[in-house]
Amino acid sequence: MKFTTEYLNFTTKRKREYVDITDEVAHVLKRSGISEGMVLVSAMHITAGVYVNDAEGGLLQDIDKWLDELAPHNEAYLHHHTGESNGDAHLKSLLVHHQIIAPVTGGRLDFGPWQRIFYAEFDGQRKKRVIIKVMGE
Amino acid sequence: MKFTTEYLNFTTKRKREYVDITDEVAHVLKRSGISEGMVLVSAMHITAGVYVNDAEGGLLQDIDKWLDELAPHNEAYLHHHTGESNGDAHLKSLLVHHQIIAPVTGGRLDFGPWQRIFYAEFDGQRKKRVIIKVMGE
Amino acid sequence: MKFTTEYLNFTTKRKREYVDITDEVAHVLKRSGISEGMVLVSAMHITAGVYVNDAEGGLLQDIDKWLDELAPHNEAYLHHHTGESNGDAHLKSLLVHHQIIAPVTGGRLDFGPWQRIFYAEFDGQRKKRVIIKVMGE
Repeated sequence: MKFTTEYLNFTTKRKREYVDITDEVAHVLKRSGISEGMVLVSAMHITAGVYVNDAEGGLLQDIDKWLDELAPHNEAYLHHHTGESNGDAHLKSLLVHHQIIAPVTGGRLDFGPWQRIFYAEFDGQRKKRVIIKVMGE
Repeated sequence: MKFTTEYLNFTTKRKREYVDITDEVAHVLKRSGISEGMVLVSAMHITAGVYVNDAEGGLLQDIDKWLDELAPHNEAYLHHHTGESNGDAHLKSLLVHHQIIAPVTGGRLDFGPWQRIFYAEFDGQRKKRVIIKVMGE
Repeated sequence: MKFTTEYLNFTTKRKREYVDITDEVAHVLKRSGISEGMVLVSAMHITAGVYVNDAEGGLLQDIDKWLDELAPHNEAYLHHHTGESNGDAHLKSLLVHHQIIAPVTGGRLDFGPWQRIFYAEFDGQRKKRVIIKVMGE
């Protein structure tokens, strides 16, 4: 069994941002030489997420608005007693989940036609990391 | 390390439908001959999900109603400018997540007594696919 | 490839409770002797979840309140026709998801500085289980 582990760094310009990282994940897979197995793509922070969905620009805005309605900023969060103001970012991270597994078949991401991997930043403008771990043969 | 990959096809009669696929997954596991490892069950579409929960009929209706309240159809989604009308299906897919990992111990799905694997269709009446990949020894 | 499987038991005092199980998972990893791979941590019940986020006490209360707003108790759930009264616990389980994968690098959980693994109980005061399966080399 072979393993390849790489890390992506992000410092987004905006507080919330959705970054298509499918090509980066595919490149790590190619470098690994693994043809059967899977790729774990997982945020290393608790105010970010990783999800698989469509890269259509309107939808990305719909998702952002929807997440902000279901998990809005709220001065009253108890978490803010620590001096933080990012309680909503933790809740948004829980909603979209912080990781995905991409299946690998024949050396490629075994995805449907519209599936793209997104890094979802909910408290950006500072350095964040994602781990990509390829496991297989 | 051994791998077995199979695909399930769905063309649901209704727009939204919840299909118990536990037995299909168990059959793929049996065919694989793998006794220790895991099974990745992952939707290949961005308007469907895969989750683990109870097969009780009333609950399935509760889940459907609840998802439709949290991620309702809305004419105003920007995604609909593309000509699509399924923005809500993308959001529902994000909510339930598109994949699960089933642990395999002693050649069987290592589940609790009520855990069942569901394919959740949110934009059906056309061909969709799920990948099942068994990995282990 | 090596595998280690252990189970955690929980009987929480309260109906809803959030238990930091990171140290238990790390101990299972250590006993496994595996240095490269991953750990699957998965609830074996359909009214509980497993997630990764911050261990800050105020945030844990924020998360509990927020989950109870998005997936509240409701007498009218059809699931309650079975005699159950825990429909909300099923929905909360779907929201936070029932499992996570922790990457393992150099014999350690390859986490960011604030990532902790939580068992989220939504229908406690009785025996529940979580499976921990370490897979790798």
